[in-house]
Amino acid sequence: MASKPSIPKGTRDFSPAEVAKRQYIISIIKSNFEKFGFQPIETPSFENSETLMGKYGEEGDRLIFKILDSGDFFEKSVQNYVGEKEFTYLNLFLYTVLKDIFSEIIFNRRIDDFEKMIIDGYLTKNIFRVYLRNQKIRDYVEKYLKDNQIFFKEWISSLNQTLIDNNRLDIKSFDTDFDNFYLGKYLNTEKSNEFYESLNNANIKLYDDLNSKSLVKNISEKALRYDLTVPFARYVVQHQNEIEFPFKRYQIQPVWRADRPQKGRFREFYQCDADVVGSKSLWQEVELVQLYDAVFTALGLKGVTIKINNRKILSGIAEVIGASDKLIDFTVALDKLDKIGEEGVKKEMIEKGISENAIEKVQPLFNFTGSISEKIKQLSGLLTSSAEGMKGVSELQFICDTVTKLGLKESILDLDVTLARGLNYYTGAIFEVAPPEGVAMGSIGGGGRYDDLTGIFGLKDMSGVGISFGLDRIYLVLEELNLFPETILATSKALFINYGEKEAFYAMQAITKLRAVNIKVELYPDAIKVGKQFMHADKRQIPYAVIVGETEMNEEKFALKNLISGEQILVNFDELKNQLASS
Amino acid sequence: MASKPSIPKGTRDFSPAEVAKRQYIISIIKSNFEKFGFQPIETPSFENSETLMGKYGEEGDRLIFKILDSGDFFEKSVQNYVGEKEFTYLNLFLYTVLKDIFSEIIFNRRIDDFEKMIIDGYLTKNIFRVYLRNQKIRDYVEKYLKDNQIFFKEWISSLNQTLIDNNRLDIKSFDTDFDNFYLGKYLNTEKSNEFYESLNNANIKLYDDLNSKSLVKNISEKALRYDLTVPFARYVVQHQNEIEFPFKRYQIQPVWRADRPQKGRFREFYQCDADVVGSKSLWQEVELVQLYDAVFTALGLKGVTIKINNRKILSGIAEVIGASDKLIDFTVALDKLDKIGEEGVKKEMIEKGISENAIEKVQPLFNFTGSISEKIKQLSGLLTSSAEGMKGVSELQFICDTVTKLGLKESILDLDVTLARGLNYYTGAIFEVAPPEGVAMGSIGGGGRYDDLTGIFGLKDMSGVGISFGLDRIYLVLEELNLFPETILATSKALFINYGEKEAFYAMQAITKLRAVNIKVELYPDAIKVGKQFMHADKRQIPYAVIVGETEMNEEKFALKNLISGEQILVNFDELKNQLASS
Repeated sequence: MASKPSIPKGTRDFSPAEVAKRQYIISIIKSNFEKFGFQPIETPSFENSETLMGKYGEEGDRLIFKILDSGDFFEKSVQNYVGEKEFTYLNLFLYTVLKDIFSEIIFNRRIDDFEKMIIDGYLTKNIFRVYLRNQKIRDYVEKYLKDNQIFFKEWISSLNQTLIDNNRLDIKSFDTDFDNFYLGKYLNTEKSNEFYESLNNANIKLYDDLNSKSLVKNISEKALRYDLTVPFARYVVQHQNEIEFPFKRYQIQPVWRADRPQKGRFREFYQCDADVVGSKSLWQEVELVQLYDAVFTALGLKGVTIKINNRKILSGIAEVIGASDKLIDFTVALDKLDKIGEEGVKKEMIEKGISENAIEKVQPLFNFTGSISEKIKQLSGLLTSSAEGMKGVSELQFICDTVTKLGLKESILDLDVTLARGLNYYTGAIFEVAPPEGVAMGSIGGGGRYDDLTGIFGLKDMSGVGISFGLDRIYLVLEELNLFPETILATSKALFINYGEKEAFYAMQAITKLRAVNIKVELYPDAIKVGKQFMHADKRQIPYAVIVGETEMNEEKFALKNLISGEQILVNFDELKNQLASS
Repeated sequence: MASKPSIPKGTRDFSPAEVAKRQYIISIIKSNFEKFGFQPIETPSFENSETLMGKYGEEGDRLIFKILDSGDFFEKSVQNYVGEKEFTYLNLFLYTVLKDIFSEIIFNRRIDDFEKMIIDGYLTKNIFRVYLRNQKIRDYVEKYLKDNQIFFKEWISSLNQTLIDNNRLDIKSFDTDFDNFYLGKYLNTEKSNEFYESLNNANIKLYDDLNSKSLVKNISEKALRYDLTVPFARYVVQHQNEIEFPFKRYQIQPVWRADRPQKGRFREFYQCDADVVGSKSLWQEVELVQLYDAVFTALGLKGVTIKINNRKILSGIAEVIGASDKLIDFTVALDKLDKIGEEGVKKEMIEKGISENAIEKVQPLFNFTGSISEKIKQLSGLLTSSAEGMKGVSELQFICDTVTKLGLKESILDLDVTLARGLNYYTGAIFEVAPPEGVAMGSIGGGGRYDDLTGIFGLKDMSGVGISFGLDRIYLVLEELNLFPETILATSKALFINYGEKEAFYAMQAITKLRAVNIKVELYPDAIKVGKQFMHADKRQIPYAVIVGETEMNEEKFALKNLISGEQILVNFDELKNQLASS
């Protein structure tokens, strides 16, 4: 391989420094998940395709990475493809073979070797080169030909007789004559046209079906997971008898999407999900808001906004404006209030077909400010006529009141009625987390409640609620705000300089003892120029060098050099140990 | 979906208890890797196919999971497949079309609509239904037909003239006549036979090429990684300018193999690798033996045997027995010494074609016992005549002597000349770790030195040495020997019983404060029957319940119940906190 190797687009290598930063975020998320009573599970990277397909909409299906079946997938595909259609294909085969025999007889007035012509000649006929690989069909065809040898011989002699009788067949009506011979006279099929047509259609279909959509089912039965929610739902249903409900699980694993890569969007990325399944209690929502606050506080990320909304409130608004099909248009337009102003928003709504009368009814949403409880009060007035909407108001009220009374550490809770994230599957609370003001970045977390999480796998009435952390975006935000701790990279405390075999052995004795008390130290492996060894320590950001020449060995001492200050002291082993342990 | 969902064979779901145990092993491996100066990297789950293919032998290639290209892979495949063969396929197309026109003229004496016949009729001709999807070919064909309309009209009128002249063509020689028309007369091709044959061959090839091996290149350009070594080599070459050598990296990530699943063998499993690249120093080997010892000691696994050998010693033996091609047979047979005895082994060797004379020369290997230094002395006598062998002896001597002098904690170092693991790529030390005696399990770790780790990617002379831990097998061994700590599962310390909204709020205030000081506690989310809540705590193995009814609320107290002893005490918040923190 001459060219420099590379990795697939949308994927990443992580250097030690990057892994350290990612692990720092993950470990904080993890410890908080556990503090809140969530327990880890892991599911396989790939699932059966039927588990994933059809769960994310058409666009989602397209973005799922499919895994080619191992072994001879194409052969298997051919087998599967025609497996149940032997008879159709046999007929198609016979029709073609016999038509060629017919033509041979008419043009050449003879057949030299009937069997050879059928078996050798026509097995290689293009259209059948693929399909006759199918052993089942091949067996079927060969058996059929053998079983019907007498019939075919009769057929040919009858054909010959006709040729003799007529001197020759009328070539103008070759097709018709043949069909009469093949169908009418010898197969005794009354509906010859229908039969002919079905053969022709089968043939055309054969080629039309050779496309990705039909092939993928035959050559791929596994796919990389697209998110952690569907595998979790599958897990719950599959292990329902072993699980103690309500089940609080977290899962931190990579997922894969064949999306167009762009800034902050990758084809392989981690999801960090915490979900509770099996309880409708709104205390879960309260705790999930607290969990967001706990994680971001621990990460030193102050002032994130945890936005909350409720699907039932959106339904209520739809009821009030009398156009549930316009709900998305409505929220999208309303979301632009800051940018284009009240008149702009109203103009856009009217353009989208929402009546002025409807817009009038929800006028308060255009001045939707104040504390959460003030906002809830406004909503309550607005949605009086909608039972569903009022249920949403009461849910929101409990969650927001409780969270407020319990207090958040560093985050802000806010009610955002334009929050319509995942409208299609959430049924209650909807969450989204925005980074602190001034950071140009989309949401760094999101979630919500779905009343029927596991229904798709046949376990009904299992309510679930969960949140997710966007690892990659959180990484970028911490980087931008310079919030990663300095000491995050797990470098060694000291590099022992290698002066040769004897000195190295002396060093290694000390290293072995230091490691036994969990102090990270290293020996430079080769006795190269000392300057180069120091440079190595510098580049690796190792803070100390330990110098052991013959003098130090004889005195049973170690020269410990602080590579930042340049200061060097002579110490015995215990002093060395204490110095490195405390630094 | 009616049937219970499942996961692909060879994959696993991990329950919280299993994740905890796996994480326990991984965290010990990880902390020891870091203690020894290794730094983590991560590489993508899938690599470009060209990075992986051809690196693991034919069998390995077969076991690599390939990922279907996203988008319309089959369409792309068709495009790629015929992309460079437009002219051949155009000719094939024209030949077929014109032959049909010829036949039409001969049989019907006229063509109603030449253009329609070509464009409509023949675009749907079966053989072209697939290939004319290729836009490039389609454009080419259509342009060709348009550009040559005058030519075709002349062709047809000439054909008509011939028909008129001869009254009719001789149908017996239809093919020859057509070829004369098509090739000889109108395309001015002298080598008509050759041309015809090439068309025919192209057509046949088309179908024969429709198989997995040819298709896979067109429909899959990515594959799941098969191990961590090749991606690491790729990483080193790709990032060579950012890496400070010698580079000590570790990597703990899943790999995938389409192997037949069996006990302890999965299609998705973790590898835990530590490698040093960029130094030939034997101190690395010494440290890797120490690293094995450190990890297994930390896991409480006493008495594992770290077996060591050297590729150069094996080469030396091959030299001495004068049959380097018989080396594997030799080591396989010798490995059976315990089972079938000296005579049995010798018999097998002779059957495999190793001469009695050769066996005589390595007689000491049949009584190869004693301490490592005794064994090395025997090898030294045996291999005197082989320079390569003696280099292996000296390497082994340094490693074993040094390790012995530095001392191992719980493991046994042993020299095993039958160790031939990875014979094809290791060039120096070879390691393998056997579980403690009495545990029926294969090796739980292995590794070695390969002098040219990155050569496959174009970076020469980069020596690497590394070891790997077999997570799944270590798990099974710890399970069998009951070595997992009791307290491994991260359950909550206490479950607060839910008596209703007011009480729950009182509880949640305490919970919030407890979590703030990192104590894991939970509220049961619903105010259901108390007995059921206690049962939940029991099933979740939560050791305490906190009971807060109206009495406790009024007194600002908490009833703390030890669920194992049944003991219950009334405490204030600080007492509660101290009790849970210390338990």
